[in-house]
Amino acid sequence: MAGNTIGVLFTVTTFGESHGPAIGCIVDGCPAGIAFDTDFLQKEMDRRRPGQSSIVTQRKESDIPQVLSGIFEGKTTGMPIAIVIPNEDQRSKDYDHIARAFRPSHADFTWETKYGTRDYRGGGRSSARETAARVAAGAIAKMFLKTVGIHVQGYVSQVGNIALKSTYNELDLTQTEQNDLRCPDPLMAEKMINLIKKVRKAGDTIGGVVACVATGVPVGLGEPVFDRLHADLAKAMMSINAAKGFEYGSGFEGVKMTGSQHNDPWVLNEMGQPVTTTNHSGGIQGGISNGMDIYCKVAFKPVATIITEQDSLDQSLNAVKVKGKGRHDPCVVPRAVPIVEAMAALVLADHYLRFLAVKHSSKGV
Amino acid sequence: MAGNTIGVLFTVTTFGESHGPAIGCIVDGCPAGIAFDTDFLQKEMDRRRPGQSSIVTQRKESDIPQVLSGIFEGKTTGMPIAIVIPNEDQRSKDYDHIARAFRPSHADFTWETKYGTRDYRGGGRSSARETAARVAAGAIAKMFLKTVGIHVQGYVSQVGNIALKSTYNELDLTQTEQNDLRCPDPLMAEKMINLIKKVRKAGDTIGGVVACVATGVPVGLGEPVFDRLHADLAKAMMSINAAKGFEYGSGFEGVKMTGSQHNDPWVLNEMGQPVTTTNHSGGIQGGISNGMDIYCKVAFKPVATIITEQDSLDQSLNAVKVKGKGRHDPCVVPRAVPIVEAMAALVLADHYLRFLAVKHSSKGV
Amino acid sequence: MAGNTIGVLFTVTTFGESHGPAIGCIVDGCPAGIAFDTDFLQKEMDRRRPGQSSIVTQRKESDIPQVLSGIFEGKTTGMPIAIVIPNEDQRSKDYDHIARAFRPSHADFTWETKYGTRDYRGGGRSSARETAARVAAGAIAKMFLKTVGIHVQGYVSQVGNIALKSTYNELDLTQTEQNDLRCPDPLMAEKMINLIKKVRKAGDTIGGVVACVATGVPVGLGEPVFDRLHADLAKAMMSINAAKGFEYGSGFEGVKMTGSQHNDPWVLNEMGQPVTTTNHSGGIQGGISNGMDIYCKVAFKPVATIITEQDSLDQSLNAVKVKGKGRHDPCVVPRAVPIVEAMAALVLADHYLRFLAVKHSSKGV
Amino acid sequence: MAGNTIGVLFTVTTFGESHGPAIGCIVDGCPAGIAFDTDFLQKEMDRRRPGQSSIVTQRKESDIPQVLSGIFEGKTTGMPIAIVIPNEDQRSKDYDHIARAFRPSHADFTWETKYGTRDYRGGGRSSARETAARVAAGAIAKMFLKTVGIHVQGYVSQVGNIALKSTYNELDLTQTEQNDLRCPDPLMAEKMINLIKKVRKAGDTIGGVVACVATGVPVGLGEPVFDRLHADLAKAMMSINAAKGFEYGSGFEGVKMTGSQHNDPWVLNEMGQPVTTTNHSGGIQGGISNGMDIYCKVAFKPVATIITEQDSLDQSLNAVKVKGKGRHDPCVVPRAVPIVEAMAALVLADHYLRFLAVKHSSKGV
Repeated sequence: MAGNTIGVLFTVTTFGESHGPAIGCIVDGCPAGIAFDTDFLQKEMDRRRPGQSSIVTQRKESDIPQVLSGIFEGKTTGMPIAIVIPNEDQRSKDYDHIARAFRPSHADFTWETKYGTRDYRGGGRSSARETAARVAAGAIAKMFLKTVGIHVQGYVSQVGNIALKSTYNELDLTQTEQNDLRCPDPLMAEKMINLIKKVRKAGDTIGGVVACVATGVPVGLGEPVFDRLHADLAKAMMSINAAKGFEYGSGFEGVKMTGSQHNDPWVLNEMGQPVTTTNHSGGIQGGISNGMDIYCKVAFKPVATIITEQDSLDQSLNAVKVKGKGRHDPCVVPRAVPIVEAMAALVLADHYLRFLAVKHSSKGV
Repeated sequence: MAGNTIGVLFTVTTFGESHGPAIGCIVDGCPAGIAFDTDFLQKEMDRRRPGQSSIVTQRKESDIPQVLSGIFEGKTTGMPIAIVIPNEDQRSKDYDHIARAFRPSHADFTWETKYGTRDYRGGGRSSARETAARVAAGAIAKMFLKTVGIHVQGYVSQVGNIALKSTYNELDLTQTEQNDLRCPDPLMAEKMINLIKKVRKAGDTIGGVVACVATGVPVGLGEPVFDRLHADLAKAMMSINAAKGFEYGSGFEGVKMTGSQHNDPWVLNEMGQPVTTTNHSGGIQGGISNGMDIYCKVAFKPVATIITEQDSLDQSLNAVKVKGKGRHDPCVVPRAVPIVEAMAALVLADHYLRFLAVKHSSKGV
Repeated sequence: MAGNTIGVLFTVTTFGESHGPAIGCIVDGCPAGIAFDTDFLQKEMDRRRPGQSSIVTQRKESDIPQVLSGIFEGKTTGMPIAIVIPNEDQRSKDYDHIARAFRPSHADFTWETKYGTRDYRGGGRSSARETAARVAAGAIAKMFLKTVGIHVQGYVSQVGNIALKSTYNELDLTQTEQNDLRCPDPLMAEKMINLIKKVRKAGDTIGGVVACVATGVPVGLGEPVFDRLHADLAKAMMSINAAKGFEYGSGFEGVKMTGSQHNDPWVLNEMGQPVTTTNHSGGIQGGISNGMDIYCKVAFKPVATIITEQDSLDQSLNAVKVKGKGRHDPCVVPRAVPIVEAMAALVLADHYLRFLAVKHSSKGV
Repeated sequence: MAGNTIGVLFTVTTFGESHGPAIGCIVDGCPAGIAFDTDFLQKEMDRRRPGQSSIVTQRKESDIPQVLSGIFEGKTTGMPIAIVIPNEDQRSKDYDHIARAFRPSHADFTWETKYGTRDYRGGGRSSARETAARVAAGAIAKMFLKTVGIHVQGYVSQVGNIALKSTYNELDLTQTEQNDLRCPDPLMAEKMINLIKKVRKAGDTIGGVVACVATGVPVGLGEPVFDRLHADLAKAMMSINAAKGFEYGSGFEGVKMTGSQHNDPWVLNEMGQPVTTTNHSGGIQGGISNGMDIYCKVAFKPVATIITEQDSLDQSLNAVKVKGKGRHDPCVVPRAVPIVEAMAALVLADHYLRFLAVKHSSKGV
């Protein structure tokens, strides 16, 4: 595949550049008969939208998705759902200064070298604007997952060196959307927001971590051996702009534990169902969901565009000075939360359909 | 896909259970005309082989691969290369005790629930024995990559809470194979080995981290937007048994940095080639290799099989006590090094072929 | 995959229903740096457009494609090219009579049973209107193929029982577009057109055959063993609405020949290049193009919508009478020519890219 | 994909050359809990085996498949099933004469040009021996399909210009295996066999047609728009060595019909189920199975290897004379019957699993 499609049975193909006429996607394989919730779709778009608060970019995009196919009488038909999101705020002039220069830690050099050309306006296809299409697709995945009882929830767990110490089950995730940062701990959120404002004031940017939890996932999602559920989650998350790391369950911290500390003992809960007393496995064992909550974290680097002069080269390999213009995020995590959720939802929807095929064909079940 | 195949143009499909007649793989898409190095293949197998040192499992497997196809007069023909590795050390009795019980943090519960059955002997398909097939496939990928100047090198960077502080370019990686652990820092290796011996003595296990470096990768590998090079690396690595986390370049630590610290400035080197002065990008920008070294890390949890009694459930959901028998690794990382390398080589070989198609069709290049 | 995508490296995903807001596609993997010829795209659309002549449906659709992405400064960028074609002539009322009835030999019964719902207006997604998106995608494939010297040309070779006796190399294919039918033999064209007019007058429809020739294809396109070039051509052609059969080279007639008649002897042409003196192989041997012209034929059934009352059932399985309304083609072949060409171009573009990866990695070449 | 894998959820990857150590396959995605019938597997192999009768090649291969994985306690486990079939009759000397020459209408020229090398012994990978692996895989698909009531049956319908006039439902298909040709009409079989013997005596070969019928297929298999059931059948069939054409339902003959003749009216049968009174649709409408019998035909060219001197070229492009040696089939169709069935079974098994995912996720069903 050429790289702009993800999934096996529930697939998404995205298109579009930052400053072209529109971006969008085709969602293929969405089950039929799902009530299509236009309001929910818009709400999800709004969670990713620029200009939503004082700690994100002040670019102006209303991001109103147009649904062109796959819906009939308010329900999905099982056919491809095409969504187009027109680009509005196209200040191409903001990018004249980078038409020839390669911005440090951007995709400019690699894309131009690979393709011999690039749409430099706003980063073109390499712009994080592409993720708006993912959020639209993820909203559709969520509509489907809702019908089978699966819920996906993301939140900010770290900005710079300020990190939540609590794990997801010690937090009140219903508080996540109560602040501009999308961090469920209000006190920590305030500290993180202050840090973001501080780096922005300095013309700089800062990294962060987004955590994600999926509840209601039945036992059985994930395919051995390469398409383990967490392997597909890893790929999906790492495909988001600025992602630098992925971990699930105990993650990198689990390295320090012994087997006797790390193993999750099986017991029966009050309803007589098998559950584990701890969840270092992050809801996945042997690559397959075990019925416990799935949780993972995604590390995001500091945004590469900074309002500070940096050394670089241009297309002719002359040394140049580059300095960010335009309007940019000082930290990606507040807007990355819905993107991480979207990718999780897309992977879970895809694996849910694959799971159905196994479940309903295996004689032992 | 059913989950046992990875890759687009250079693909691998693996098969086999721990205690069946054999494991193996089919490598499809390997270029023609590559000299097939049987000795190298065996050496790679030996690096993963059980019983190779005192800090790994003492299971006895000679792991001698049989090549059934795709080679003619000592060279690859471009046709599928099938490799069969017979299983030898099949003490199935070691596993009678787990025929009905679900071992904590193993795949027993999830696989049995999903498929209604499982080959419980040695974990069956969920056994890490499957990775022998990956190492064989990876050896072939390395034979190809060698012809285009790409080299992949892994090493142990952490065991438990003992971690190397140096990054890859501060280490003498040629020392990696000089100790049983495969850690290029001899003093740190000794400390880590002592820790492994200590936990093994306690009937326990410990986690660790494997780092991997790829040198000689040209600019241009990786496909936007979902098949970013690091996204495919993440999936490949996370599909290895016991993997819990993946990061590349600055990784989770990069979160704490500001953009001005993190950005990698472009300059010309003494040969007039564009290089970056730092490499927080880990050799990949915008999902595409930028010509610098690619490096990443994979976190492995402590092995789940421990010689300590643990609470669990059996197939009838009765509470049982489970205790590891048989011969198991106290820590996966020494044997995980060639597996991580294999997965890196497979991803790079696949993306190299995809890169060739783009490179030779784009008019601008 | 969910079924609406075709190709491995050069892929197309289509969307849209006959009477929704729009249809369209995303072309992914098109090489960068190709001059984008908007006029050519429109001309190709016009060749498939309804209302273009007296022997096709009189539906009114201007079919003006909007290109939303992947083009910068008049050239392709290597990024996905999204095309939207708005639907204009939406007389949904024409279809009220089939909202509940299953039209004979249409997709009504199967789609409704499979998905539990269907957009019945104009056949919804099962409408041949979907093929407009294929023609748009095929036009892009042709732009690429032109840069490597490959040309694709289709023509009508049979209507009902009136068939050309000449094979492609005995015909003057430059005459193809000189008549409404797209048959390069003017006399035979007239007979076929008269037959079409006769069946239309009777409120009936008739089948036909479209032949397709590709010239300039280098030796080497096609992948053994399942992705043989003609196998992928077969799939692509058989995915067109109303297609009932596919053959290449000698096809079904070749069955009657002996090996000594059928084999194509290799000789050197005047330029010292290896050619075959006959071409029963249809330009493909062992699944791989051999440098000779590739030719194939596609059989199309008579259009299922007829202005004659037929027996059928409705959703409640009551017997009903169904009679075609609206404006329909008496024979698909004149408009099928550009569709067949588009599918051929898409398969060849895809295999050309796959060929490049093999060619530039094999040491023997 | 590199071309040696077919299928989406139920996949097969084959490997092996005619004169290497072995050929074989990995079947991935076979449902768990299916009783594995070793005798049936061998019987299927025997139907394709050389030397089975006087009208096929007298090569000696016992073709005894070894199952290496995926079976536990007599049942499938849902894991990959690897099958190895050792090559026994390796008279490589038979092929010395073609080491440098390109046999007419073989894969010699195209494969050598594409890959820069080829295993010329017995045609190497391009040998029809590869189809033994398909038959093994198809046997597993049939074991699965049997559990859901689907049966696949092939037969010879034409040899040279001698063709059955009856369609499948006018024949007694239980008679198919009663003669060496696998033609259910004994009188016609005798005529066809005589023709085969006559051409063989002349050192020549002849083409033929294999028909295939699938019964018990529920409504709903097939994915719009590119993965139509008959499109995937077409690809699968055309990927068989020597296949030149594919048609389903009315096929190329349907071209001559009018819509009023061709349309299949819906009525209720005696059990109150919707059926069509005719079946020109071949059991597939809009790309999706409609519950009626699926039937198709595959045209095979005359075998290219003939015991007659022919003009050709060698690797240095010198004119040479080539003459078949060794033991070859005078007509492929008797042995092609189980191969055609295998490909049909593989496509149906794959689409059955895809169908289950749709069926159990659509709210309307």
